[in-house]
Amino acid sequence: MSYEDPYLVISSDCHAGLPTEEYRPYLEAAQHRAFDEFLAQAQARREEATRLGVRNEAFAQKWFEEHEEGLRGGWDAAQRDKELDGDGVAAEVVFPDADAVDSRTAAPFGVGLGLSGDQDPVLGMAGARAHNRWLADFIRAGGSPERRCGVALLPITAEPGLVVAEVRRAHADGLGAVMIPSMWVDKAPYHDRRYDPVWAVCEELRMPIVTHSGAAPRHEYGDHLGIYVTEVTFWPARPLWFLLWSGVFERFPGLRFGVAESGCWWLPNLLWFMDRLYLGAHGGKKLSPFSELTMAPSAYVDRNCFIAATNTKRRELAHRYEIGVGTICWGSDYPHPEGTWPNTRQWMRTTFHDIPIDETRRMLGLNCAEVFGFDTAKLTPIAERIGPRPADLGQPEDQSAVEAAWAPAREVGRHWLTGHDFPFLGTAAPTEGRTL
Amino acid sequence: MSYEDPYLVISSDCHAGLPTEEYRPYLEAAQHRAFDEFLAQAQARREEATRLGVRNEAFAQKWFEEHEEGLRGGWDAAQRDKELDGDGVAAEVVFPDADAVDSRTAAPFGVGLGLSGDQDPVLGMAGARAHNRWLADFIRAGGSPERRCGVALLPITAEPGLVVAEVRRAHADGLGAVMIPSMWVDKAPYHDRRYDPVWAVCEELRMPIVTHSGAAPRHEYGDHLGIYVTEVTFWPARPLWFLLWSGVFERFPGLRFGVAESGCWWLPNLLWFMDRLYLGAHGGKKLSPFSELTMAPSAYVDRNCFIAATNTKRRELAHRYEIGVGTICWGSDYPHPEGTWPNTRQWMRTTFHDIPIDETRRMLGLNCAEVFGFDTAKLTPIAERIGPRPADLGQPEDQSAVEAAWAPAREVGRHWLTGHDFPFLGTAAPTEGRTL
Repeated sequence: MSYEDPYLVISSDCHAGLPTEEYRPYLEAAQHRAFDEFLAQAQARREEATRLGVRNEAFAQKWFEEHEEGLRGGWDAAQRDKELDGDGVAAEVVFPDADAVDSRTAAPFGVGLGLSGDQDPVLGMAGARAHNRWLADFIRAGGSPERRCGVALLPITAEPGLVVAEVRRAHADGLGAVMIPSMWVDKAPYHDRRYDPVWAVCEELRMPIVTHSGAAPRHEYGDHLGIYVTEVTFWPARPLWFLLWSGVFERFPGLRFGVAESGCWWLPNLLWFMDRLYLGAHGGKKLSPFSELTMAPSAYVDRNCFIAATNTKRRELAHRYEIGVGTICWGSDYPHPEGTWPNTRQWMRTTFHDIPIDETRRMLGLNCAEVFGFDTAKLTPIAERIGPRPADLGQPEDQSAVEAAWAPAREVGRHWLTGHDFPFLGTAAPTEGRTL
Repeated sequence: MSYEDPYLVISSDCHAGLPTEEYRPYLEAAQHRAFDEFLAQAQARREEATRLGVRNEAFAQKWFEEHEEGLRGGWDAAQRDKELDGDGVAAEVVFPDADAVDSRTAAPFGVGLGLSGDQDPVLGMAGARAHNRWLADFIRAGGSPERRCGVALLPITAEPGLVVAEVRRAHADGLGAVMIPSMWVDKAPYHDRRYDPVWAVCEELRMPIVTHSGAAPRHEYGDHLGIYVTEVTFWPARPLWFLLWSGVFERFPGLRFGVAESGCWWLPNLLWFMDRLYLGAHGGKKLSPFSELTMAPSAYVDRNCFIAATNTKRRELAHRYEIGVGTICWGSDYPHPEGTWPNTRQWMRTTFHDIPIDETRRMLGLNCAEVFGFDTAKLTPIAERIGPRPADLGQPEDQSAVEAAWAPAREVGRHWLTGHDFPFLGTAAPTEGRTL
């Protein structure tokens, strides 16, 4: 790769979904009556979101007015490609719920980003299948299937046989990953062996498993938006340590598990905490309480986990040698307002201008290509056409100063494993400037 | 203060409790039958702890054999003072449950460190009162009341009138702080206005409110100790953002809230996350979803919150300019095996040798004195007799090199507020060595 080569940018977190009422043909007739009831509650759901402050009337009006055309890309493939091109994004991982403002494209029965373990098992599976069928059609018929990896919705707490069958069906239909609920609520937690057949089929078919932020115990929050936002990222991250400590990554070494749109700021402390726990208990030895593991937790995270780290923050990039540069997959969150669309090119420049180019290539696209199995050869011509180049991100051709600035942080890395006394974060000299 | 002045060391997290059966005289007769039933379940509770791996038979045997005398300080004041002296600790904040290995000193009806919101309200209040009465006696009769601040157990989800009355009773009886459950479980979350009378009386009486790690949704963990340990610190920290975002610290500006034995590694990211959320939403202005606040979240934490940061780690000290040097209160966790007793003096040297002396004074004792209202004049003679001096911690009299090493981290501080681009953590040059 040379300085002139454009970035192959892949967004690990984008969203698509039909206007809810249009899901009807994808549902079986048996569910139509329940679907009508679900549609009738849309206004009540909107009022609930407004009450918590997740939704703001004035913002919503402005957002839909200013972005009418671009938002149609939520379910219109030609418009969507135009928006991706504008952002310099060659390919994308496609989650549900295109409309994060008014939930006009909520998947049937709320199995989109709010997918929850206590979902009615029959309706939940029906709603998931409806969205999954539509998504497969959308990707196939959209004219550029190589640009998309569709995420199948998977109500994993339903009957295991049905769950495994839906993974196989979705895979055969062209989808490339599965999203499971962040919260099992009153169902079996994810350490339970009842899920082993699901982990097995996902490993076999190379379907990464992802949780995505959204669900949370909202009944505990009253109308306090701050509480919700503060802990909403905890719930999708939580399954990571349930899988890890119960040996799922040991039993299924090829399984990939990721956490989407929940940041990655929490990962360094988690790795430090878990590694110390494991290593302090004579990990792997006889009598260890962690005999289901054979490696330190961070080694499993390096091998089995990834972060779909939407809208990566400068603070998070400063932590990347603790997190693992290979673990971070950038995402634009198109077409959600909290993402970088339609200003992704400017955002990349602000955020990555002083990050080494080779690391930028990995975090902006190559990591994501590896996890989700994108065909980079097919994407290269698209990247040639629309991809930003290092110079566009303000990155200098001579990288020696950049490398020198980050050398101490890279050398210290995970200080608890490298024998260093303290963490070392940030560049060698404190820099003033943009704070994100 | 000069280099020769000893440290006034105060442990913000110690534990005392009677062997459970001896609580009987402190219970009212009406509860004796229920108490017998509680006692009869002790073995079952021990087996449950062993199954999860929290308890290890071989370790337990060795621990009690090697520390028989010192452990008697859990309920014997003279022995206790001897142990504190040995560790160089002048004073202590006294939580329940002296025995963390076999729970032989569990407070009646499990209202000690496992205090939970779904506790039976009548038995819970009875058990709390029994421990609180004993603790007050213990401190009064122990011969050195100036060395102890007793923490009253407070089942806050019970009837508010009774809860407020118990705070007043405990305060009149000489106790200085209250511990509330980390988890409200099925009761009202802590943003609920039903708790305002409790916050009010605690503010009025200058009784800090504390959560302490212990309770967690164990039914979700199967027999996976790693899951429990990984998230056990989340639950006591969680009330902090429930109080903060619901405006409790705005309505009760003199209230102090602390989180005990849960580390403080999670606080920098929390402050960064909450401040950005508040400031990004035009905090304090009209139409803000956070109109109940008038300051950035970190300002409330600086004013209202503290961390009883037992067994502080080097990684946490590296974060202290983001956390706030005034927020960290060290603790020995005596007589728990995961603490620093009986090796506190050596531990302090390992951990603090290159930390500035004035900051060490605050974190090892002065912060704690301020929060819990210790009479430092009365403690000074004790510190003179037993307190370690900076030289004992390996701290050089000439502090210029130490100050210079930390200057960049101090200057950057909370980078999101100081206009710096990245966090800067650790000393100016990466140092190899001890990793804790």
